[in-house]
Order: sequence, then structure tokens, then C-alpha cells
Amino acid sequence: MTTFSALIEKRRSIRQFEKKEIPLAIVEEIIRESCLAPSARNEQPWHFIIVRDAGMLKRLSDESKGNILREIESNPDSPLSPYKEVMKVDHFNVFWDAPCVVYIVGPAHARSLEVDCALAASYFMLSATSRGLGTCWVALGSYIKDNGLRREMGLPDEFRIIAPIALGYPQMIPDVPPREAPKILKVI
Amino acid sequence: MTTFSALIEKRRSIRQFEKKEIPLAIVEEIIRESCLAPSARNEQPWHFIIVRDAGMLKRLSDESKGNILREIESNPDSPLSPYKEVMKVDHFNVFWDAPCVVYIVGPAHARSLEVDCALAASYFMLSATSRGLGTCWVALGSYIKDNGLRREMGLPDEFRIIAPIALGYPQMIPDVPPREAPKILKVI
Repeated sequence: MTTFSALIEKRRSIRQFEKKEIPLAIVEEIIRESCLAPSARNEQPWHFIIVRDAGMLKRLSDESKGNILREIESNPDSPLSPYKEVMKVDHFNVFWDAPCVVYIVGPAHARSLEVDCALAASYFMLSATSRGLGTCWVALGSYIKDNGLRREMGLPDEFRIIAPIALGYPQMIPDVPPREAPKILKVI
Repeated sequence: MTTFSALIEKRRSIRQFEKKEIPLAIVEEIIRESCLAPSARNEQPWHFIIVRDAGMLKRLSDESKGNILREIESNPDSPLSPYKEVMKVDHFNVFWDAPCVVYIVGPAHARSLEVDCALAASYFMLSATSRGLGTCWVALGSYIKDNGLRREMGLPDEFRIIAPIALGYPQMIPDVPPREAPKILKVI
């Protein structure tokens, strides 16, 4: 049992995972808890894709890296430009070699898709932490354009990927990085 | 002490509050915990405005209601149209007469402003729940356009309101509304 205050101190972005599989039932339980997040007008637009197959994880990472590189090449001012060199490193896996990635996705037309999926993602990351697991929201893993691959993932055409979350047992839990003091603009 | 699983069952959207002030130190502590949320590239774009003054809360509610009505009138297909009649009810306060509203806001140019503020909002709602408080993310309270009022709030010109969150002691905690079964599209 952990207080919420202790739990949020423990929730860190994890980028080094043990080589240890996570039982599917645990992933499903974390997803079930994620669905308790609030959503605008209770629309619950979130959907989930669980990927644990190492080959598929590599293909998703490679697809994303290729698309990011193309985006940087076509627009050198892209905010992705700082990632250019690492995207070329063959053995670099955007998911930090996590044994599992859960994609939180939803229909592009949903009115508050990004916010609602972010709320579910927040629950997901905390639920995983409460089970001794580590997570990292890997925005670099969301650049999946290839239609064949999208279909293999089970991603409907009109769906958008909002949050690819790497999941695994952490090798270590880093300290809380420095946080700015809360920026309270005014108390009225 | 509550487990995370119990906490998320207890976190409901609260729309009936006790007439009881919340000590400012508690609101500040909830904000401090909200700042432990992850953010894209650790940019922490979130800023907070605490409003506890009943007169100001009424003005913010009235300003929002007026702007929503104008939006519906200029566009009858607006997704806000279902709220038309209640927006005309004089004594209806969009914040459900909560004794406190915290606005989570940030610079419009921040790259992941909505998602980052949603993550902080999620922490905010859970932190409040862990302290016996209730919250409601009141999207209808975000339609603040009047420049004078924005200045009185301490809201810089280039800032956007992402999450106005009503905060107070709940009169009662409703049951968990029905949730759809988790929509898992595929396990790979």
C-alpha cells in the first residue's frame, strides 16, 4: 500500500527495462484501470493495442524512425530535428527495448481525443507504477503511416495514435528530475 | 491510506459541493503534486490560477455562459448547442457553485500544451480525491474572452485556458457510472 503522494514520486519515465515478460493479465488489468479516467461527456474514446511481439516492436520502431527522418529531411526546421542522429542508429529502439508497448488510440473525429487519451495514459502510468512496473510515453513511436502495418496492428483507417506507452519492469528508478516551483499566476 | 485502485474508484466528477472553504495551503499542495506529472520533453508548460472569490467565480461563469450562447447563436450546429437552454438559466453557475476553481493554463505556443495540462489535471483530480475533496473538469468554464477579465485573472495575452477544475468538499460521492468494457483492438 502506497499513498498517492508516494506513488507519484515513484512514477518516473523509465528507459531501462529488465528482460522479463509481463503477464498479459497484468497489462489487461492496467488497461481496465485506465478506463476509469474521466472523459469529456463520458465519451471514453480510448482504444488499446497491446504489442509484446519483439519482431513487431522492432518493425514499429523502424517504421517510426524512418518517417521521423523523412519529416526532418523535408523540413529542417521540424521540432523533431534534434532527434535526427539518433534516428539513424540501427540498434536504437524508440521503445527503449521495452518488452511491451501499449498504444492508446482513438477515432480522429472524437471531440476531445487527445485530452481524453492523455487522461487514460496518466491512469495507465500510475496503475503500472502501483504494480512495480515502469512506463515511458514514447511520442517518437507514434509515426506509423504504412497502411499495411497499421492494418496488422488492428488500427482502423480513421484512428489516430495518441500515446504509445512502453511498459516493463524497471532496471532502476531514477530520482525525480528537478521540477520548477509551481507557477501560480494569481490567487483571487 | 488508500490503494491506487481504491482511489480511482473514489474519483468521480462532483457537481454538488458543501458550502465550506478549502484552506489555501491545501489547494497549493494539490497544485504542487500536479506538477509531478510527466510532460513532453519535461517542458512543464502548466500554470495555475486559483479563484476562491465568490464574486469573481460568478463573473467567470457569466462571461463563459455569454460567450457560449453567442457561439451557439452564430453556429446552430455547434457541439455546444445542447447546452443552450441551461446557459440561459440565471442562477446556474457553470462551476456547480464550487467554493474554488483552479484554472490550468499555459502559453499557446507550447508544443504539447493540451496533453501536458491534461496530465497535470489528472494528477490534480487524484490528489484532491486523496485529500477527501471532489473535482469536476468544467470545460464550459473555459470560454473567457473579455480582455479586462483575463487581465484581472492574471492570464497573459498569449495564454490558453486548458482545464478549469471546480474543487470542493463533495456533498456525496456518486457511484461509478457505467464504463464500457476496455476496447482492446488487438494483442500482438
